[in-house]
Amino acid sequence: MTISMHSASAPVFTRALNRMLSWLDKAEAHAGAKKFEPAVYLTLRLAPDMLPFTRQIQIACDAAKFGVARLAGVDAPKFEDNEASLADLRERIRKTIAFIESLPADSIDGTDAKDVVLPRRDGPITLKGEFFLKAYALPNFFFHVTTTYALLRHAGVEIGKSDFLGPLQG
Amino acid sequence: MTISMHSASAPVFTRALNRMLSWLDKAEAHAGAKKFEPAVYLTLRLAPDMLPFTRQIQIACDAAKFGVARLAGVDAPKFEDNEASLADLRERIRKTIAFIESLPADSIDGTDAKDVVLPRRDGPITLKGEFFLKAYALPNFFFHVTTTYALLRHAGVEIGKSDFLGPLQG
Repeated sequence: MTISMHSASAPVFTRALNRMLSWLDKAEAHAGAKKFEPAVYLTLRLAPDMLPFTRQIQIACDAAKFGVARLAGVDAPKFEDNEASLADLRERIRKTIAFIESLPADSIDGTDAKDVVLPRRDGPITLKGEFFLKAYALPNFFFHVTTTYALLRHAGVEIGKSDFLGPLQG
Repeated sequence: MTISMHSASAPVFTRALNRMLSWLDKAEAHAGAKKFEPAVYLTLRLAPDMLPFTRQIQIACDAAKFGVARLAGVDAPKFEDNEASLADLRERIRKTIAFIESLPADSIDGTDAKDVVLPRRDGPITLKGEFFLKAYALPNFFFHVTTTYALLRHAGVEIGKSDFLGPLQG
């Protein structure tokens, strides 16, 4: 009849994070085929004043990590933001998935009307859980996921919409 | 306690579509300041084999339109895909928002376990409403919204994350 807060958040994040892992595999293969160092991807940008590839993945992970942690009211694991290779970025994504999957569904369920405090440049703001998820956490997460995808496409990696969405049937 | 299917879909789509309208205003101002025809945006692509700007907006609109229409089990308005200016694209977005807002919440609520038929290249597939929304409609929508944003950023339009997310407090 309705969607639980856990179901509307955790599996949406982990599904897309797993997609990103598959893109990194294709990116590595593309670098091999074209004979360039995979580390070349790490500093790619779509515009000089946009964040580079590594930051897009780091922030996508953090958007997911903090998305569930703030709803559940638990501390998220701290990452050092020192990834220097595709392997490091894969590990960051895997640790993020593991954290999200470690949270019991009932720690997130029922948080739709819970106050969630969001740190912002101008000071913290307080949002209700459902609005936090729908207006901030999910759009911000998909922003960085899609920008990661766009950078790889722009770099010639052979990924398409089905790599973005993933399998829709088992 | 939980999120309704309407609340998890319709306002998420309309919020982001309204953001896109605001980006087109800034894109038009940027073209004016730099003295180029705003129609230049329409054919921009991030890669030669990616869809151009106009198609990104058309598909974002369709992802939102069909997202709610398939859940509600109603026909979506047909658009001709003949937009040839930023004004036309604005109109497409406004018509999409109007359609989404015309659907009563109770036509979408309770559709989480409903069978939704999704046309695909290899033939139609049937998904449950909640999975359709979370694994297809919302990610696909945000894909095209974010790619539209990326094209404008790549073209030098001065938009930032706050233009993407929109106001978080009233």
